[in-house]
Amino acid sequence: MSDVNDYLNGRRALFDRVLAESLPPRETPPQIIHEAMRYAVLGGGKRVRPIVAAAAAEACGADITPLLKHLAALELIHTYSLVHDDLPSLDNDDLRRGRKTTHVVYGEAMAILTGDALLTEAFSWLGEPLPGVDAARQLRAVREVAVAVDSKGMIGGQAADIEAERSELSADPEALARLLTFIHQNKTGKLLTVSLLLGGLLGGATDVQLAQLSAYGKALGLAFQIVDDLLDIEETAETLGKTAGKDIEQGKLTYPALFGMEAAREHVTILLEEALRNAAMIGGPVNYLGAIARYICERRS
Amino acid sequence: MSDVNDYLNGRRALFDRVLAESLPPRETPPQIIHEAMRYAVLGGGKRVRPIVAAAAAEACGADITPLLKHLAALELIHTYSLVHDDLPSLDNDDLRRGRKTTHVVYGEAMAILTGDALLTEAFSWLGEPLPGVDAARQLRAVREVAVAVDSKGMIGGQAADIEAERSELSADPEALARLLTFIHQNKTGKLLTVSLLLGGLLGGATDVQLAQLSAYGKALGLAFQIVDDLLDIEETAETLGKTAGKDIEQGKLTYPALFGMEAAREHVTILLEEALRNAAMIGGPVNYLGAIARYICERRS
Repeated sequence: MSDVNDYLNGRRALFDRVLAESLPPRETPPQIIHEAMRYAVLGGGKRVRPIVAAAAAEACGADITPLLKHLAALELIHTYSLVHDDLPSLDNDDLRRGRKTTHVVYGEAMAILTGDALLTEAFSWLGEPLPGVDAARQLRAVREVAVAVDSKGMIGGQAADIEAERSELSADPEALARLLTFIHQNKTGKLLTVSLLLGGLLGGATDVQLAQLSAYGKALGLAFQIVDDLLDIEETAETLGKTAGKDIEQGKLTYPALFGMEAAREHVTILLEEALRNAAMIGGPVNYLGAIARYICERRS
Repeated sequence: MSDVNDYLNGRRALFDRVLAESLPPRETPPQIIHEAMRYAVLGGGKRVRPIVAAAAAEACGADITPLLKHLAALELIHTYSLVHDDLPSLDNDDLRRGRKTTHVVYGEAMAILTGDALLTEAFSWLGEPLPGVDAARQLRAVREVAVAVDSKGMIGGQAADIEAERSELSADPEALARLLTFIHQNKTGKLLTVSLLLGGLLGGATDVQLAQLSAYGKALGLAFQIVDDLLDIEETAETLGKTAGKDIEQGKLTYPALFGMEAAREHVTILLEEALRNAAMIGGPVNYLGAIARYICERRS
């Protein structure tokens, strides 16, 4: 485990640096929004999405150095989704990554614009021409990312989640399971899956490798969400850096709430095996995908 | 004037159809967000941005038929900005295009997500490969659009506008004029300018034509905003379909408020001349750019 810890810490520091250098400086006018963007993005975070994207590109044999800014764009999208989710009219969270949420510090209006700006900035980074990468492939990457986070993807999952919280839920366990699967697959699954696809596309993956990266991403995305839900129940606010037990309090539909802790843990094990199987098939000279999957499924925070 | 009226009505109907056919059907799950997206986009609107983009492509000699969905993406971006601007924590508008604003009908949370979804959908449309258009040029178009509406563009203008409303304004007329110019150029100017650039890029413009389209767009964008501000003062809520006189009531920084109605009207005339000059230089077999500029500067609503 110490190996993968070092690797992940190194990569986290690398992407922290790329983000700090690539975001507009705080003095850029209008200063207020650039301060807020940097506050939201540079306040910690595991950088899981760029890290798995880089691991995917590496497994396909690519030098990741020229791709870093493009892969870091995934973190802008992830952060924008958090900034908007935390707003008073959505999840109403005051705490995120152990710090005050963006709207608590900068006000609601600026937090909405900050999320908008981060999403837009992501497409600006993704659209920067990459020497050595075929433009048609890069255009496909832009489109794949947009589709993954649109109203049938990440935002659709978020909309379904909010709807579920506000309506009388069906008593039919199968209908509930279908709804939960929809929310998980979209709200967190699709951005994680497309992160692997982005790494593969920009890293020169073959079509077979792209399919394996997608299968790996799907399994890992769902496992990641179930582990998050398990941690939300098990952990205290102090360890987690966000308001814990909030899911249950809000009557949120989660995997452990629906199927029980035991079944949730078993499902994570099955998903981890699926991820490991695909990671092994991708091959590659440097392949951390298996180690990352293990780490994500066995993490305690 | 009747010629350009017919032309604009035809184009408006064309883009209304393209938008209705290209947006996800309302039954797409989750239904609520697709209903809200269609409500926000399909509730009228002049479709100015796709129309000028199409006119630009046409002036460069292109057949616009294969480009329509890509050009319509501009309207998604414009609509997203309106949906977010109208939110209670921003401009707090209940009425838009003569109808209830999205958050009044669907609630604040869903309106935020609807704006997010429209912005994302725009990049998904822009990323669809266009046969016959060079992929590198299309990638450049994606990036130009993103940069025009990022935190140094449209969103930056909106952030500066909100800051100006909330702070004690400088008493120095030059400082005020600089701030006003920044807001105008960014909040409305850049999306309009990039609309012309998008039409030119996808329509096969030469570099000289791209520069002329940009100059035309800059002049037209500012004129458009000043005319809007003039109309806000002159018109009643009934004619305009939005809450009139609101700018003055909210102490908004506008061109007529700062320089007077007379000077504002004169400035529109100068900008129109600049737009007409560039429109004429672009040439082209079918060139409605001049007629559109005239129409926009002389409109009464």
